[in-house]
Amino acid sequence: MMRHTNVARLAALSLLCLAMLLPARAFAFVKGVETFDLANGMQVVVIPDHRAPVVTHMVWYRVGAADEPTGQAGIAHFLEHLMFKGTRANPNGTFSKYVASVGGEENAFTSSDYTAYYQRVAKEHLADMMRLEADRMENLVLTREVVDPERDVIIEERKSRIDNSPDAQMSEALSAVLWFEHPYGRPVIGWLNEMEQLTLEDAISYYDRYYTPNNAILIVAGDVTTDEVRTLAEQTYGKLARRAEPPARVRPEEPVHRTARMVRLASPLVTQASLVRSYVVPSYTTARKRGVGSDSAALDLFAELAFGGSTSALYQKLVVDEKIAVSLGGYYRGTALDDGEMMIYATPAPGVSLETLEATIDRELAAFLDADIDAATLERVKRSVLASAIYAQDSQQRLARVFGSTLTTGGTVEDVQAWPDHIRAVTAEEVLRAGRKYLDTNRSATGYLVPQAQAPRS
Amino acid sequence: MMRHTNVARLAALSLLCLAMLLPARAFAFVKGVETFDLANGMQVVVIPDHRAPVVTHMVWYRVGAADEPTGQAGIAHFLEHLMFKGTRANPNGTFSKYVASVGGEENAFTSSDYTAYYQRVAKEHLADMMRLEADRMENLVLTREVVDPERDVIIEERKSRIDNSPDAQMSEALSAVLWFEHPYGRPVIGWLNEMEQLTLEDAISYYDRYYTPNNAILIVAGDVTTDEVRTLAEQTYGKLARRAEPPARVRPEEPVHRTARMVRLASPLVTQASLVRSYVVPSYTTARKRGVGSDSAALDLFAELAFGGSTSALYQKLVVDEKIAVSLGGYYRGTALDDGEMMIYATPAPGVSLETLEATIDRELAAFLDADIDAATLERVKRSVLASAIYAQDSQQRLARVFGSTLTTGGTVEDVQAWPDHIRAVTAEEVLRAGRKYLDTNRSATGYLVPQAQAPRS
Repeated sequence: MMRHTNVARLAALSLLCLAMLLPARAFAFVKGVETFDLANGMQVVVIPDHRAPVVTHMVWYRVGAADEPTGQAGIAHFLEHLMFKGTRANPNGTFSKYVASVGGEENAFTSSDYTAYYQRVAKEHLADMMRLEADRMENLVLTREVVDPERDVIIEERKSRIDNSPDAQMSEALSAVLWFEHPYGRPVIGWLNEMEQLTLEDAISYYDRYYTPNNAILIVAGDVTTDEVRTLAEQTYGKLARRAEPPARVRPEEPVHRTARMVRLASPLVTQASLVRSYVVPSYTTARKRGVGSDSAALDLFAELAFGGSTSALYQKLVVDEKIAVSLGGYYRGTALDDGEMMIYATPAPGVSLETLEATIDRELAAFLDADIDAATLERVKRSVLASAIYAQDSQQRLARVFGSTLTTGGTVEDVQAWPDHIRAVTAEEVLRAGRKYLDTNRSATGYLVPQAQAPRS
Repeated sequence: MMRHTNVARLAALSLLCLAMLLPARAFAFVKGVETFDLANGMQVVVIPDHRAPVVTHMVWYRVGAADEPTGQAGIAHFLEHLMFKGTRANPNGTFSKYVASVGGEENAFTSSDYTAYYQRVAKEHLADMMRLEADRMENLVLTREVVDPERDVIIEERKSRIDNSPDAQMSEALSAVLWFEHPYGRPVIGWLNEMEQLTLEDAISYYDRYYTPNNAILIVAGDVTTDEVRTLAEQTYGKLARRAEPPARVRPEEPVHRTARMVRLASPLVTQASLVRSYVVPSYTTARKRGVGSDSAALDLFAELAFGGSTSALYQKLVVDEKIAVSLGGYYRGTALDDGEMMIYATPAPGVSLETLEATIDRELAAFLDADIDAATLERVKRSVLASAIYAQDSQQRLARVFGSTLTTGGTVEDVQAWPDHIRAVTAEEVLRAGRKYLDTNRSATGYLVPQAQAPRS
């Protein structure tokens, strides 16, 4: 199928990371972003972009893998697959064939916090996209004939994406030990043993509970006006009934973490040892809830300054000066309904052990947090972060994703628009304070991925 | 209070471990064990022991911390506390005062799989124990006045038992990374943040769902006959209504583990570094369900042969010969409704790092599994395991616990009675095969407890 599904956790993380780097306020057309609700509770966001006669049409559901019932890991992503199976009016493949026939592209993706569907088409096809997407929000046909073979498809997908990939296995295990109680510790694609048990009834129950207009957000970016979108939305989505009142998104909270955790994975598929470290840190949403909203913008800049690129402090020290690592990077995953993560990854130079690499990273992180950040460096990094956000706006789809991921994780259109100002306002002292506050190894998990030959702990 | 509550996970494990070493069949009085059900579904087990005119009276509920609703970690143990708060007929403290006034002792304990209450009294008080225990099974008074202050008590208990104890914190973190999905990864006492949220309504709902005679087992050991117990039970417990049908005890299953996990805890309270390793292995119950029932008896003997005492292979090598460790031990926790654990713990000799100790343990475990077990050694260990079980029978309470823990974790009276025969039947080849099959570091988590001074990973 032409459809690609981003379910691997790392893929989702990268995407979220990109998303965070996309502000909105800097551009004329982003200034025109408007949002309103339909009578049935569906939120609509319109992002005008008149550079070309195309539109990006997205529907986001406020539900993801972290909302799954216990024991049904994978149902969110399973339903994403099933949404392509057709309705009575538009049976198997009609929607996708239509998109292809007009030269459009489509995709869908599931993360821990949301599930989304989109098409990019010439503007004259927008009405049809809305009609077809609204149809499958209410009329999806779920039968054993549809569900049973698709279960095999997601199981096969898991086998090829995770079970044959040491990187993906490491990512999965790292999340599992990083989060003790929160479902962010579960892989978005699901655990194999639970995927095998997913039933038709599970799928129907999940669809009926979450795929209702009052749990959805329509985002249209492109060559349209708010009035055009409003009219079309009322004719399509506006006709759908509220099928359910989705429950409050209250997930188990993490207990206080007091231990540094570690995962070691040895595999013959690994040719180059590598290290990854993840810390639980506040997301944009949880920082705001706890009254420390500025910590998240500070963490954005901390990540950039410490290990975000080739000019970052740790890259300069470990890769350029000491040549202990051949690569090193990291980022802040701040777009999440619950807490976020700070990730660091590195590959040692030949002859350097992961233990030495890890100790050096810890030493240099401590040194970074003990030193000052000079004003010129901070300004350069702020400009760089804002500039990459500006360049990224060139993609209609990415911009739409910024709004979708923010709105499904507790943020607002205004939050997206205010992000550049928050970045500009951060002081060097705030960056260091946030780093010292959250980059405690007792809040972290570290993964060692090693070739099988050097694997045994004995 | 005179009541002691065994909630710390390690304590529960030791207890379970002891329980496993107690067979029943070897003793005259154990031959007379009888079991029957009351009309309301309550199971009764009578263990005659006429050495002295005393009885041990226990009620076991088939519910424990692993049955708790998500987000309510600690409710099982909280309810154990609340059960001492009194009923309308026997308000605050009446039951405990009565036990004390007749020179008896009482206790209660919560584990992942069960919750139990017991009293040991002179036989003439048995009828009153049954009357009072039956009363609180149905008539417990749960009000805000009772629940709110007791929540503070369990929170204080957690603080003193776990939060001030690096050993307990390590045990907690080790379980959390060993089990990805299964609630055995949660501490029996609960996570502080969830304990703080437990409400009166949670307690009532839990009590009404699980504290019903059809979910309970009465065990009476002592100077009684089955007929006496039957008559008294029908007059007390037999009058209770089934208040609920407890749900099937289906917990999330573990995904396949592919990574060796590790936890490091540094604390100024630690004066001596130590190491603990735990593997997920089948329990008696899951081995039987999977058609590999003999694996569990083999694991019992494996634990004894490899690291169970001062004559074990690893103790001889690491403590006696190489003097790398000053202590070393381990055991098999086989009594569990879901999978069990194989535990190893060791303390390094001065100047030996935990890394060296761990590598040596792995090397010697591999050597043990590669070598043969000579027939004389196997016979000696079998005799020793059976003998300690025989000695342990001297305690009426321990014997009653063997039956209670077995019956609440999927076993039967016959399983207890057949255990010595299963031990006798195990071959050397079966011991080694079980060890090779299950002692894979990818199924394990290892904990390093280190003094703060040598703690930082940098």
